[in-house]
Amino acid sequence: MPVIPVNTPSAKYDVTIASGLLRTLHPRLAKLNPGKPFRPFIVTSPNIWALWSKHFLASFKEPPTVLFHPAGERHKRMSSVEALAQQLATAGADRDSLLLAFGGGVIGDITGFLAAIYMRGIRYVQIPTTLLAQVDSSIGGKTGVNLTAGKNLIGSFYHPQAVLADTDLLRTLPPAELRAGLQESIKAGIIYDAKLFRFMEQNAAAILNTKKNADTKALTKVVAASVRVKADVVSKDEKESGLRMILNFGHTIGHAIEAATNYQQLLHGEAVAWGSIAALNVAIARKTIKPKEAERITKLILRYGPLPTFKATAEKLVALTSRDKKNRSGIRAFILPTAIGKVEIVRNVTEPELLAATNHMLTLMRQKR
Amino acid sequence: MPVIPVNTPSAKYDVTIASGLLRTLHPRLAKLNPGKPFRPFIVTSPNIWALWSKHFLASFKEPPTVLFHPAGERHKRMSSVEALAQQLATAGADRDSLLLAFGGGVIGDITGFLAAIYMRGIRYVQIPTTLLAQVDSSIGGKTGVNLTAGKNLIGSFYHPQAVLADTDLLRTLPPAELRAGLQESIKAGIIYDAKLFRFMEQNAAAILNTKKNADTKALTKVVAASVRVKADVVSKDEKESGLRMILNFGHTIGHAIEAATNYQQLLHGEAVAWGSIAALNVAIARKTIKPKEAERITKLILRYGPLPTFKATAEKLVALTSRDKKNRSGIRAFILPTAIGKVEIVRNVTEPELLAATNHMLTLMRQKR
Ligand SMILES: NC(=O)c1ccc[n+]([C@@H]2O[C@H](COP(=O)([O-])OP(=O)(O)OC[C@H]3O[C@@H](n4cnc5c(N)ncnc54)[C@H](O)[C@@H]3O)[C@@H](O)[C@H]2O)c1
Ligand SMILES: NC(=O)c1ccc[n+]([C@@H]2O[C@H](COP(=O)([O-])OP(=O)(O)OC[C@H]3O[C@@H](n4cnc5c(N)ncnc54)[C@H](O)[C@@H]3O)[C@@H](O)[C@H]2O)c1
Ligand SMILES: [Zn+2]
Ligand SMILES: [Zn+2]
Repeated sequence: MPVIPVNTPSAKYDVTIASGLLRTLHPRLAKLNPGKPFRPFIVTSPNIWALWSKHFLASFKEPPTVLFHPAGERHKRMSSVEALAQQLATAGADRDSLLLAFGGGVIGDITGFLAAIYMRGIRYVQIPTTLLAQVDSSIGGKTGVNLTAGKNLIGSFYHPQAVLADTDLLRTLPPAELRAGLQESIKAGIIYDAKLFRFMEQNAAAILNTKKNADTKALTKVVAASVRVKADVVSKDEKESGLRMILNFGHTIGHAIEAATNYQQLLHGEAVAWGSIAALNVAIARKTIKPKEAERITKLILRYGPLPTFKATAEKLVALTSRDKKNRSGIRAFILPTAIGKVEIVRNVTEPELLAATNHMLTLMRQKR
Repeated sequence: MPVIPVNTPSAKYDVTIASGLLRTLHPRLAKLNPGKPFRPFIVTSPNIWALWSKHFLASFKEPPTVLFHPAGERHKRMSSVEALAQQLATAGADRDSLLLAFGGGVIGDITGFLAAIYMRGIRYVQIPTTLLAQVDSSIGGKTGVNLTAGKNLIGSFYHPQAVLADTDLLRTLPPAELRAGLQESIKAGIIYDAKLFRFMEQNAAAILNTKKNADTKALTKVVAASVRVKADVVSKDEKESGLRMILNFGHTIGHAIEAATNYQQLLHGEAVAWGSIAALNVAIARKTIKPKEAERITKLILRYGPLPTFKATAEKLVALTSRDKKNRSGIRAFILPTAIGKVEIVRNVTEPELLAATNHMLTLMRQKR
């Protein structure tokens, strides 16, 4: 059973990945809190709870209080955090409470933030249920909510006590959500792990098969390897002052695509996929990567599609990138692959370069349509 | 000019106390951020701004953006934080922004919390304008807002870069606010600083005189000494696991009085004053303090009145104390003075003891009416 440590200056915890993890949930929570009283509160969405409550509760003697938060990115807001906090207070939650974030990235981000600010900080555990949450959002301590003015503008760095990723949960995930999440795994391969990249090239069919009786061994392997990349990077640079920026590969144009389509048309991973292709095009034009390697990357990204198409001009997308909160004082950090498994951070990507690369990506998209 | 250091595991900063500080505000901010760009945003209330904007802006070449937050405890809510964050985002505030909390404890708590969670943390400076804020709330990094379910249930530990307390600001403070704030100074004397206690005994008239041309030297001395107590205690115990609890002297019954009167009738310091008398009565009954010292304490508290009276039974007040969030797992930590300037933390105060002590306090109150 893969157990991957996260080790930052402010926290130390493990990410455990396995099929059937839910069955042993309560003893795991007890082990995380030896000799310390804890009263668990579950934060989840009705749809997830309907599917998985029986498995979730199997190891609990007394059923914990469940707080429901509606599914969907548009509910990742301050008002939801306040409503959940109010429910916690009414249920008598004190500093001995332990929040269990049981859902995708939305539930994870909001529950982590709630834990960060309820009574100035209580414990929480991430139990991610989407691929994206298992390989990305549950790890690294970024928590928060959206403003009307922009995504994730409010939040805290606040780490969980543990991340418990049961890969069985992925069986009920809509296939598009699975594929979109796998784009973050491909990203992990591109920026940091050539072996993971190759494994995803060679086992695509097995990885994408989550039918009832299918073997999830290949998928579990991908989750574990992706987690290792994120855990490693975050451990080396908790607060995103350097290395952690490489996780944003594909995200500059990716975020612009999400904004241009009002966060309605594409899943995050799908937008990142197109953004990765655009970023790759910058590297190709600069000849910092061999054409053959670049081709393999594009091919793998498309293999985990189909990627939905969208309508936006390159000019519009590039204009939207300057609002990205990662652009400190206007100097745009940009992540360019130099080979499969390797990237460099550059700060001199020009507007015309970015325009050309984005236009190439849009041309490719139109060909696929 | 008194400059008092706060030195905790997570932050190190100074509290500067002086008349005329506002005049040199901008150079002070620049000195706090050498070589780092900063864009100041002021958070304040219209009433405070109307009185002091000219002084505040005197040292600024370009006037910074001002964000207004309505005065009053009832606006210390998540929705206000969100509205301010939204204004920040719309004004283009990024990680280089520097928030200036210009107001009393409400503005300080809300601005500190906003700084803690905007883009997962930006810098801020406390510029407290009430006595309570200067001697208490601006120091120690507790920030936050209220829920319907209870006060300060949401928040962060997040320290400012500096606290700049200009005692001139106190001249426009309603006298009742001044006197209520001074109850926290008396508390500081009782728990930690016999010299401060004596100074407040001997100079009450001078301290309470904030008329236009009055000398504020005595008041400045009280502010500095009170700040020293808080800074010292917080430096030794940032997260309230031990020593910091002594700051809650008088607050167990004090909070109960506030709750019983719906936070409408008494100022916080006034409720704490009555709460201190009740706590003192426990010490008297236990004979842990000499009757003469106890008498001096009660006398000083009443000297800085008049304290408003209120209607509540001892039973009601004691019942309300069990909801206090400081009571971990039901064991009530209680602060008892053993001499002027000294307290002990005890955990075995019984309900009947507390009832008797509260009844004594209520009897005294009725005599004063
Ligand atoms: N904190 C971070 O570091 C970080 C990193 C990346 C993304 N994020 C955030 O993550 C969020 C996206 O997360 P997401 O992609 O998991 O989306 P999501 O949480 O919205 O989940 C997607 C959908 O799948 C449903 N679902 C979840 N698990 C299921 C299951 N096992 N079976 C069936 N349905 C299930 C959800 O109810 C939802 O409708 C965004 O808000 C993004 O900002 C955060
Ligand atoms: N963070 C902490 O450690 C801590 C400690 C104690 C109290 N607090 C919080 O502090 C708050 C109370 O603070 P407060 O007593 O300063 O109340 P406040 O901030 O509400 O100010 C009191 C009133 O005085 C006005 N005012 C402020 N400065 C003025 C000036 N110079 N001239 C004229 N009017 C002025 C305000 O507009 C307000 O109407 C509470 O919310 C409490 O929870 C926090
Ligand atoms: Zn992403
Ligand atoms: Zn107080």
